[in-house]
Amino acid sequence: MTKRTIPDIVVGRLPVYLRALSFLIAEGRQITSSQELGDRLGISSAQIRKDLSHFGEFGKQGTGYDINFLYDQLRQILKVDRMWDVVLVGAGNLGKAIADYNGFKGKGFVIRAIFDNDPEKVGKLMGVDRLKVQPISELADMIHENNITVGIIATPAEEAQAVARTMIEAGIRSILNYAPITLTVPSSVRVQYIDPVVGLQRMTYYL
Amino acid sequence: MTKRTIPDIVVGRLPVYLRALSFLIAEGRQITSSQELGDRLGISSAQIRKDLSHFGEFGKQGTGYDINFLYDQLRQILKVDRMWDVVLVGAGNLGKAIADYNGFKGKGFVIRAIFDNDPEKVGKLMGVDRLKVQPISELADMIHENNITVGIIATPAEEAQAVARTMIEAGIRSILNYAPITLTVPSSVRVQYIDPVVGLQRMTYYL
Repeated sequence: MTKRTIPDIVVGRLPVYLRALSFLIAEGRQITSSQELGDRLGISSAQIRKDLSHFGEFGKQGTGYDINFLYDQLRQILKVDRMWDVVLVGAGNLGKAIADYNGFKGKGFVIRAIFDNDPEKVGKLMGVDRLKVQPISELADMIHENNITVGIIATPAEEAQAVARTMIEAGIRSILNYAPITLTVPSSVRVQYIDPVVGLQRMTYYL
Repeated sequence: MTKRTIPDIVVGRLPVYLRALSFLIAEGRQITSSQELGDRLGISSAQIRKDLSHFGEFGKQGTGYDINFLYDQLRQILKVDRMWDVVLVGAGNLGKAIADYNGFKGKGFVIRAIFDNDPEKVGKLMGVDRLKVQPISELADMIHENNITVGIIATPAEEAQAVARTMIEAGIRSILNYAPITLTVPSSVRVQYIDPVVGLQRMTYYL
């Protein structure tokens, strides 16, 4: 089955499965079932089996899934069995929280450079790797010279589109956008949005 | 049509439409079309029309949508035409960034109290409203006495489940969870996850 035929929403659930498996591994577990995964994630076991069946046979009937095997397979499918260099733009509170987050490296990502347009922030050391914040003018060269394809935008809304444009022109193809604005990007570029308001608003509907 | 029949994924797109409409309003625009909204959001115009048709007739054939009217209608549907009090647990870098974010109030949410279990953080003033960080021991009473139903968790993964339990027992029914862990909650409680790793991993698949 080619990639094109797998629905985006299925791909979107794989990182959630991966996260659940990593917790099971941390608990020292060896075997799990679609039932157990489903209970933990609030997803039906049938949905999990169906999602995984897009990519192959990962469990034996009646014996469940070998956790480490499934974990490794999903990491390969999602291509996070390697390390992706990431650029982060925005060194305010939010950028600082992102740079300080120590959950990226174990999951396939490492922030290689941090940029800001505020002269007061440039030159400061930031994040788990104590990176020196660089001026935004150096963003394009950094991306281009290091063949970086993943970027995180943590700027105010007004600046996000211009940052995205610079990123994309220099070679970025995946953007995680924290700015509360929908970015206009070519169809070859993927954007995922992190917007707390959207998360909150889709819950109040049910209150 | 009753609420139960509207797919969760449709409800999930309404906040995104609302955000796009708010940008159009800021641009001084009066009328838009499903085509224009779709182009801005990377969603087909047919999808937008179908999503909105679940909730009523918002546009006239050939004349498009009155932006302010549609905006008001969606705010009512999502129940963000009122203000929801929110408690925030976790006053580290991430909690600080969330508390400082000035995009909640215009969208129906106001952080009323901030909690942390670190004595060094308790008592500090934080966020757009300069709230005094309270000890976590006061969380349940605060929620209960003020009938608060919305909570944000910005703690480390190890503490998130216990915080969620306290929140839910005290009356919280919607949780925005930044901790990188899937929470176990009763079916009456909704959780939305903010996890940058999940966002990044669902893009690397396509790289």
